[in-house]
Amino acid sequence: MTDLAAVKTALKTQAVETPSWAYGNSGTRFKVFTQAGVPRSPWEKLEDAAQVHAFTGVAPTVALHIPWDKVDDYAALAKFAEERGVGLGAINSNTFQDDDYKLGSICHPDAAVRRKAVDHLLECVDIMDATGSADLKLWFADGTNYPGQDDVRARQDRLAEGLSEVYGRLGDGQRMLLEYKFFEPAFYTTDVPDWGTAYVHCLKLGSKAQVVVDTGHHAPGTNIEFIVATLLREGKLGGFDFNSRFYADDDLMVGAADPFQLFRIMYEVVRGDGFTSEVAFMLDQCHTIEAKIPAIIRSVMNVQEATAKALLVDRSSLAAAQAAGDVLGAHAVLMDAYNTDVRPLLAELREEMGLDGDPLAAYARSGWAERIVAERVGGQQAGWGA
Amino acid sequence: MTDLAAVKTALKTQAVETPSWAYGNSGTRFKVFTQAGVPRSPWEKLEDAAQVHAFTGVAPTVALHIPWDKVDDYAALAKFAEERGVGLGAINSNTFQDDDYKLGSICHPDAAVRRKAVDHLLECVDIMDATGSADLKLWFADGTNYPGQDDVRARQDRLAEGLSEVYGRLGDGQRMLLEYKFFEPAFYTTDVPDWGTAYVHCLKLGSKAQVVVDTGHHAPGTNIEFIVATLLREGKLGGFDFNSRFYADDDLMVGAADPFQLFRIMYEVVRGDGFTSEVAFMLDQCHTIEAKIPAIIRSVMNVQEATAKALLVDRSSLAAAQAAGDVLGAHAVLMDAYNTDVRPLLAELREEMGLDGDPLAAYARSGWAERIVAERVGGQQAGWGA
Amino acid sequence: MTDLAAVKTALKTQAVETPSWAYGNSGTRFKVFTQAGVPRSPWEKLEDAAQVHAFTGVAPTVALHIPWDKVDDYAALAKFAEERGVGLGAINSNTFQDDDYKLGSICHPDAAVRRKAVDHLLECVDIMDATGSADLKLWFADGTNYPGQDDVRARQDRLAEGLSEVYGRLGDGQRMLLEYKFFEPAFYTTDVPDWGTAYVHCLKLGSKAQVVVDTGHHAPGTNIEFIVATLLREGKLGGFDFNSRFYADDDLMVGAADPFQLFRIMYEVVRGDGFTSEVAFMLDQCHTIEAKIPAIIRSVMNVQEATAKALLVDRSSLAAAQAAGDVLGAHAVLMDAYNTDVRPLLAELREEMGLDGDPLAAYARSGWAERIVAERVGGQQAGWGA
Amino acid sequence: MTDLAAVKTALKTQAVETPSWAYGNSGTRFKVFTQAGVPRSPWEKLEDAAQVHAFTGVAPTVALHIPWDKVDDYAALAKFAEERGVGLGAINSNTFQDDDYKLGSICHPDAAVRRKAVDHLLECVDIMDATGSADLKLWFADGTNYPGQDDVRARQDRLAEGLSEVYGRLGDGQRMLLEYKFFEPAFYTTDVPDWGTAYVHCLKLGSKAQVVVDTGHHAPGTNIEFIVATLLREGKLGGFDFNSRFYADDDLMVGAADPFQLFRIMYEVVRGDGFTSEVAFMLDQCHTIEAKIPAIIRSVMNVQEATAKALLVDRSSLAAAQAAGDVLGAHAVLMDAYNTDVRPLLAELREEMGLDGDPLAAYARSGWAERIVAERVGGQQAGWGA
Repeated sequence: MTDLAAVKTALKTQAVETPSWAYGNSGTRFKVFTQAGVPRSPWEKLEDAAQVHAFTGVAPTVALHIPWDKVDDYAALAKFAEERGVGLGAINSNTFQDDDYKLGSICHPDAAVRRKAVDHLLECVDIMDATGSADLKLWFADGTNYPGQDDVRARQDRLAEGLSEVYGRLGDGQRMLLEYKFFEPAFYTTDVPDWGTAYVHCLKLGSKAQVVVDTGHHAPGTNIEFIVATLLREGKLGGFDFNSRFYADDDLMVGAADPFQLFRIMYEVVRGDGFTSEVAFMLDQCHTIEAKIPAIIRSVMNVQEATAKALLVDRSSLAAAQAAGDVLGAHAVLMDAYNTDVRPLLAELREEMGLDGDPLAAYARSGWAERIVAERVGGQQAGWGA
Repeated sequence: MTDLAAVKTALKTQAVETPSWAYGNSGTRFKVFTQAGVPRSPWEKLEDAAQVHAFTGVAPTVALHIPWDKVDDYAALAKFAEERGVGLGAINSNTFQDDDYKLGSICHPDAAVRRKAVDHLLECVDIMDATGSADLKLWFADGTNYPGQDDVRARQDRLAEGLSEVYGRLGDGQRMLLEYKFFEPAFYTTDVPDWGTAYVHCLKLGSKAQVVVDTGHHAPGTNIEFIVATLLREGKLGGFDFNSRFYADDDLMVGAADPFQLFRIMYEVVRGDGFTSEVAFMLDQCHTIEAKIPAIIRSVMNVQEATAKALLVDRSSLAAAQAAGDVLGAHAVLMDAYNTDVRPLLAELREEMGLDGDPLAAYARSGWAERIVAERVGGQQAGWGA
Repeated sequence: MTDLAAVKTALKTQAVETPSWAYGNSGTRFKVFTQAGVPRSPWEKLEDAAQVHAFTGVAPTVALHIPWDKVDDYAALAKFAEERGVGLGAINSNTFQDDDYKLGSICHPDAAVRRKAVDHLLECVDIMDATGSADLKLWFADGTNYPGQDDVRARQDRLAEGLSEVYGRLGDGQRMLLEYKFFEPAFYTTDVPDWGTAYVHCLKLGSKAQVVVDTGHHAPGTNIEFIVATLLREGKLGGFDFNSRFYADDDLMVGAADPFQLFRIMYEVVRGDGFTSEVAFMLDQCHTIEAKIPAIIRSVMNVQEATAKALLVDRSSLAAAQAAGDVLGAHAVLMDAYNTDVRPLLAELREEMGLDGDPLAAYARSGWAERIVAERVGGQQAGWGA
Repeated sequence: MTDLAAVKTALKTQAVETPSWAYGNSGTRFKVFTQAGVPRSPWEKLEDAAQVHAFTGVAPTVALHIPWDKVDDYAALAKFAEERGVGLGAINSNTFQDDDYKLGSICHPDAAVRRKAVDHLLECVDIMDATGSADLKLWFADGTNYPGQDDVRARQDRLAEGLSEVYGRLGDGQRMLLEYKFFEPAFYTTDVPDWGTAYVHCLKLGSKAQVVVDTGHHAPGTNIEFIVATLLREGKLGGFDFNSRFYADDDLMVGAADPFQLFRIMYEVVRGDGFTSEVAFMLDQCHTIEAKIPAIIRSVMNVQEATAKALLVDRSSLAAAQAAGDVLGAHAVLMDAYNTDVRPLLAELREEMGLDGDPLAAYARSGWAERIVAERVGGQQAGWGA
């Protein structure tokens, strides 16, 4: 039997970090569709993120992206966030939107570009010092489009060198989270294409370097929960970038494409004590055609529902069936939890937390959506690149 | 034995259409890297396309994209092209870059948006009348991102209705070429995801409607040459959009990712008499990090090399081995052609055509690259969206 | 609001056909693991299938495979089945296990092999006459392993010719259901690789020829429910071969790998009036490591659960949200149905049908599993090839 | 400029190990097609392997598979091989064809089965001692078919424990080569699914444990040459199992599906000094429909051709173009080598080695194929499982 009280306790302490950039405009290479009311500054992004936390209760921090969220006074930004009930989370670097980065950043064949990229990463650690952020999240667009374009192995050497310098700059309590990505925007090779490559580099760097699993960054058919289990077993799972996809890095709302997969991932997190370790649960999504704040609320709820189901798995029955080699019995125990409708449990939980049981309805009633459309007139909407 | 003279004749009459948009800037959703010297108008795109033809001898026409290549006087544009040795080719429509098209164009749930999209397509036929273009090439970004977002089947009804109206507008000698695409920018469904869907619609429309195979628009593992063989057998192959890819619609230079696949495709074209039918051979690529004109020259050469190899297949030996069930023997006949180095043959061919045997070296020597960098200063570079 | 009474009525009349071969042994190319109690004859397979129907109430027919289920007296077989509460379903042909079929069957380069294959198919129609089966289900292992091995297009001609002869033999009320398959056991080309190819052939043959969708026979990322919607729209969906897969044609229990996909497929069936048309719902699975009868019961239940959820979709709310372009709202309507726990509803339904609410528990209590282990001693267990 | 003499020297010392099981029968789960003349014993397999070496000059060793190649006297077997001009190579274990292994071998939930599996591996090391083989090649069919079936992480613990015991048994000069596989015969998880997992285990075991790259064991779109480059950089590439595939683990002749990929892999081997290190180049293929000995000769030649092209890459020009960021120029240098027809060079090389320039024609003329058909009558043909 599962201990419902323990499940609720776990769910109440869950924390999902939302990304500042998901509140701004984004799109595909074909078109960025803008939306009315979108934030025009980091400050307004934080206001929106605070709404998500206000209605879900489990989205207490906001990831920043540098330079998109650059401000003159990070202490003021942190105070602004705090006043709205949220905190500043991971610092995300950007080494892909300058003209210099056409052929890569810290893997670039030209040492001057590599220097520039590393300097940017060092600046991000400075910002972490200012914001109190614990995590530097690194994703590199580095790679090549054509066989022969660059030396695959030399790029690994450059990568190792650049990471090492940045690692040395990390202070106590600061981590470097290295993300891997199967493809895009580089099409032939990416310089950190899989968890194995990220692991190799993190292992050499040391205990402050850990791997980030972005759920959209894998080849078709990849068993992501296996990777999660393996990284937890190795003590190298730093966190997640959640989103969902049907084919590529679609960046759809987490849980929208394959909710069963999300549940299986969350089960391995529970199994590997990931909730009690320092695994960061972050969203990294693009809401190109749907309303942004409700999409993020729904995403947080999707993570919550998958977590609740994972916590409801009757682990002793499961272990017994597994030990007995009872294939159908063990599968059935897992599916029983998945097939449970956890929405009533979560509504009850929210009410216990002083929230509305239905975050989307409550947000819709709040008038925030109408208010930002009315008030955020003029200026430059935030987006990728701003 | 293969008749080398016949091979040469076939190669000399080959025609690869280059796309006006490949001369302008393009990129990924992360960044568009601009290049010096890029055209600032349809006129300048035609100048560049004329260079490609001048050095390869087999790229006599240029596809236009509306509205990116809109001009006041298409007759003047056609004359301008002709004076530079090239002609205007297919007209490509754009129903994806207006804000109205966020949820689709001719499949949109709102009839007003569908009307706008169809009107645009009708305008494209008007332009065909003005330019003398024979082909209207249709690619729709239509689709959905989330299960439930729209009614999959109703969208097919809307698609059929819109296509039917446009089909009715086609004049004698005009065709509608319908492209399919597996994914992107829609991620859950695309409204014409595969050749089967395109075929179903074209079959109902009539003989002026044919299917376009974009080599980058398939699921992993798809046997593209099988589709080519099947469409030729059905008389429904309208043409190709050539490019290459490692994973998604990477839009790399054709032949760069899998030259053996390109050869196999070309072999099925030869086998199915595709060179003597009205199959259009077009490029549709993005040169995001490499120099554009040389990349297009190389692409044309890649198509040429694959074609030469396909023509060199000893078809009577192949047929004999196939009939005998000689698996290894038949495979060997095909591979013999593929393993042949056709570059000397093509150099010879070019010289017979009064061209330099090495188009890339000749282009490099011509000074055109330096000239456009020097002269095309100021103004707005052409790109997706302009 | 959904009409629960109508949902129940629909669920009570649902019919899932189970395949005789799933009760026998099967495996991978590496090993067939035998199981105690497995049937040694078509008669014993029917006994087991009758158990599945007895406990689920919705598995009234059994598909036969020829020659695996060849008997001298099909009328006796039909009577035997009827006495146990089930009927004989589709006849499945086998043109892949004779030595002659190494390079194909009706697409083979040798006319004598093609003749043999067609004769087998004609014999299957004879058997249909004897059993009263309405459907001839055709899956061809035909294809090639190496580029050049055979002529892709000539094989299509042979396929069309063979199918045409068999089609001509079909009587009133008999159908030919043509299955497509992406890969395996042929690796380079399969002769009916996708729904488009199956559709092209069925369209030419006539109204008695329809396409079968095997849910495991697609490229990664393929949107199967789109194919279902399209085939229903064209009146060409003959039926399903249900199973599930993580990567290839894994033939796992339907609903085990991606229950959300199964729900989406079932929703398109409901949407396209597939339950009221002549769509056949069949299982085609291999239970290589799990107990066979319980696995088939679970599979039937998985189809039932997905169907129940599909029927519970609030279609008027969905249509309203779709028409309004409310992406998140429309998605939420669909997800509300999916997230519903339908197990209580189905238990209630079964009790209304005079069955135990929990088929797996009831089967386990029945003693059948122990009985067949005890009684089916000696003889040759049924399997692929027997 | 490339030094042709050095290229030839490298090619003359190349060694490709052929697998004993490729000379026997194999097939798909649907059918094993037997072939006349197939060996009936390990001795006859060695006779056939000796033919491959006799005509190619670069296939000097033969991998054994235990228990398929079990003999009473391994010294006699080694002597028999030596007399025919070949040597015994890697020992391959089999932990997948006993009934006990239904749910795994060294990852099995039952300790008794794990014990049996480890004992088998230890026996393989005994055999290595007897044959003088340096390498123990480990591939595990272990995995699960259904979510929940077993504990993903516990299976890793069991794997580590079992490997550790076997590692401890290795003598001086003996290695353990650990193969990973994406899927099949397990469909939900495999216990060593990717290079990262194999690397993690090998790293912990020590320097005698290295990773084997089977070219058919990856997800679609995986950049295999990147993995090769990375493992070489880490000193952990133990060898290759060569074959080719279009979709799954098709086990076709290496180089048949994507010769350009094979070239890129070989280029990374050259680049990473893999030819001068202890990387083992082995074939692991199934010749289900084609004649086995000629297929293996062709496979060896395909490896040779790809190697020759890789050696012909003008590395100084390549490095210069890469350093300059000349995308097209660097790509062109690589492609120039790939587009070269190396068959004349290899014919010349063979003649210098005292061989016929055309191994396949020479083998065909030798009469061996006819002789084994005539002489190998009766008995039990070797195959998977025998």
